[in-house]
Amino acid sequence: MAVSIGLVGTGTVGGGCLDILAAHKNDFERHFGVDVKLARVCSRRPDVAVAHGCGDIFTTDYREVTEDPTIDIVVELIGGTTTAYDVIASALKTGKSVVTANKAIMSTRGAELFALAEQYGGELAFEASVGGGIPIIGPLKHSLIANGISSVVGIVNGTTNYMLTRMGEDGLSYDEALREAQELGYAEADPTADVDGLDSAAKIAILASIAFNSRVQRDDVHTEGIRSISPIDLRKAKEMGYAVKLLAIAHRRPEGIDVRVQPTMIPVSHQLASVSGVFNAIYVVGDFVGESMFFGEGAGAGPAASAVMGDVVDVARRMQAGKGPDVGCTCVENLPIMPLDTLQTRYYLRFVVADRAGVLAAAAEIFSKYDVSLRSVMQEGTRERNAVDLIFVTHTAKEASIRQVIDELVKLDGVILSQPTVIRLED
Amino acid sequence: MAVSIGLVGTGTVGGGCLDILAAHKNDFERHFGVDVKLARVCSRRPDVAVAHGCGDIFTTDYREVTEDPTIDIVVELIGGTTTAYDVIASALKTGKSVVTANKAIMSTRGAELFALAEQYGGELAFEASVGGGIPIIGPLKHSLIANGISSVVGIVNGTTNYMLTRMGEDGLSYDEALREAQELGYAEADPTADVDGLDSAAKIAILASIAFNSRVQRDDVHTEGIRSISPIDLRKAKEMGYAVKLLAIAHRRPEGIDVRVQPTMIPVSHQLASVSGVFNAIYVVGDFVGESMFFGEGAGAGPAASAVMGDVVDVARRMQAGKGPDVGCTCVENLPIMPLDTLQTRYYLRFVVADRAGVLAAAAEIFSKYDVSLRSVMQEGTRERNAVDLIFVTHTAKEASIRQVIDELVKLDGVILSQPTVIRLED
Repeated sequence: MAVSIGLVGTGTVGGGCLDILAAHKNDFERHFGVDVKLARVCSRRPDVAVAHGCGDIFTTDYREVTEDPTIDIVVELIGGTTTAYDVIASALKTGKSVVTANKAIMSTRGAELFALAEQYGGELAFEASVGGGIPIIGPLKHSLIANGISSVVGIVNGTTNYMLTRMGEDGLSYDEALREAQELGYAEADPTADVDGLDSAAKIAILASIAFNSRVQRDDVHTEGIRSISPIDLRKAKEMGYAVKLLAIAHRRPEGIDVRVQPTMIPVSHQLASVSGVFNAIYVVGDFVGESMFFGEGAGAGPAASAVMGDVVDVARRMQAGKGPDVGCTCVENLPIMPLDTLQTRYYLRFVVADRAGVLAAAAEIFSKYDVSLRSVMQEGTRERNAVDLIFVTHTAKEASIRQVIDELVKLDGVILSQPTVIRLED
Repeated sequence: MAVSIGLVGTGTVGGGCLDILAAHKNDFERHFGVDVKLARVCSRRPDVAVAHGCGDIFTTDYREVTEDPTIDIVVELIGGTTTAYDVIASALKTGKSVVTANKAIMSTRGAELFALAEQYGGELAFEASVGGGIPIIGPLKHSLIANGISSVVGIVNGTTNYMLTRMGEDGLSYDEALREAQELGYAEADPTADVDGLDSAAKIAILASIAFNSRVQRDDVHTEGIRSISPIDLRKAKEMGYAVKLLAIAHRRPEGIDVRVQPTMIPVSHQLASVSGVFNAIYVVGDFVGESMFFGEGAGAGPAASAVMGDVVDVARRMQAGKGPDVGCTCVENLPIMPLDTLQTRYYLRFVVADRAGVLAAAAEIFSKYDVSLRSVMQEGTRERNAVDLIFVTHTAKEASIRQVIDELVKLDGVILSQPTVIRLED
């Protein structure tokens, strides 16, 4: 019995899936006894379908895929949250299984879709939504289930990791690094989703939901991007023995879930610190397994298509064997999301200040007023217009106190010339 | 419906499993709806069973577990290949499922056991047999199946990696490093299985079988250990920009499978080079996923028990849902194992030689005779009795030629004072 696949979307990842089918369809049959048949391809671009030899099964109307009763698995790869949601939901409503790479939908409407899959008996697989080709959803849903997971911390956005690597190792400015990432095709013309941390937020919401068995939505994630990071911050970090990474962080605390995306300093000796360029890595701590890390290529046609087609073959294999869907939603807990204000950690704060006497004393007094103890203060170089960088590194402090310190500092008339760069330290 | 577990073996890993059950039995029910009931514990040590509160379900006769018709899953954790084999085989023959951490059996009699599982309808799960707590069997059997895997290269023995780390970073001799590893409980009183690479050989045989869909037995693996490695080798490697690791290597070549365990120099920039101490890591290359790596704690009660109990809960969950066993054996290919002689790589060779004129010239002539081109020659320090270390690093050469060079060199009368240390370079 062949399992019929309908592919919706023939962009980078969809093209990669067609390449995998061309390369390995026979292996799927030989090795796993799975007969995967591409039955329909939907795209806005007929030329791509034709180039992949799919001219005869091509359509521009996704309903010809989702409503085709002969199709067993719909692969949604158009991205976005409007049409893509219709594709996934309507396919599930006919009892089909769906494989998707759509982190935006899975991190905002995952619960609804799992409910549809459950109700109509289909499977919803989404390994490709996080970490490109890195197997992480599977391990969290199967291999690691004997653990209480305490932390999932990842570098899950290749674009920003590439930029930070170039800024840190080669001294590029933020703008130069962004331009280069765009020229290389790593960053979009509008880089917002990457540099503001939204892409990472969607991914950590998905991982945290599985790891902690409690639904975390993308909007639950406190999200800061890397726009305020300068080469000076990466240089200072290195001097202190740290690397700066845009981390997607989820910790299980007694009070609930601490989940955020923030530029973060981690010790250079940590496994995550050496993950450079467009690579991704996800670090998981469980109460019995201890530390484990999953590393690989986080983006690009091949890795993402590897994850999508891994799901397709796995779902098809279960289908052929009459085994029914794999594990669905396991979010049976309802854990609170901790407000950012309750965070306690160490902080690196850099302000551009007027280079005149008394600034440091005034600043130090404000830190002291809010009971924030300083570990070190550094004043760096000379900027244009007699400004300097004033850098504070604190001992463990409360986020709420740090906010008060910053609010009061920026009000110091004529002294603080910019909003500060805030980097939290994670040890 | 509860799923009844019979545990055979209450050593380090078995004890860890009992700890996990005590800690997370309720979570398994809450999160996954799996009611895992420990029905029987078999051990030679009643005291351990009693200490874990299993006095009332204790037995010293494993047949009371394997022949108990109420038991669904037998967990084999006694190790070895004699009684353990009987436990696994007899359990499978009653249609039970088996979870094991037994790499010795899986790498030598895996095919027979898979056949029994298939015949009688049980499942055979063995995630814990490789890499301790690192999920690797699951990812290879599911997430990565859309790839043609070209390489699996691992640091899969924590004991030797600890020893090499201490020798390389702190200059300990082999004997000192071994003694320390024994004192810390990382190495057995008889360290043969670790230091001679047998443990790693079993593990790479298992991984290669899954990755290449072709059965690789432990005895197929060309195996060399670390006994001949000295701190000087680690120092020289560092000077050359390399780290020395005991690597378990499996490459898919057009001619067949190149599979071996050997002390190997890898560039310090490679992800595996920074895996130190008792940590394990497994690096996988697929034609679409590219490079990926799985890192974690390779040994110890917690990590191994995490893998065992992950399998137990997963098997129990499938059983409760009436889904039948997960994917069994997929070794449908019958690929040849490449003879070591056909290997072509770069070599580091160190000989202890008499410190007298003409030695280098005589040696160089022999390399030349067998068409082995040298990249560098180094003569190091002074040993007792006027001996020195003479080190050759070759360009790419054939293993067969290197063997001829060594055979002829050691015959040079009164010049070569020891068998050489051979380390292959992998780039």
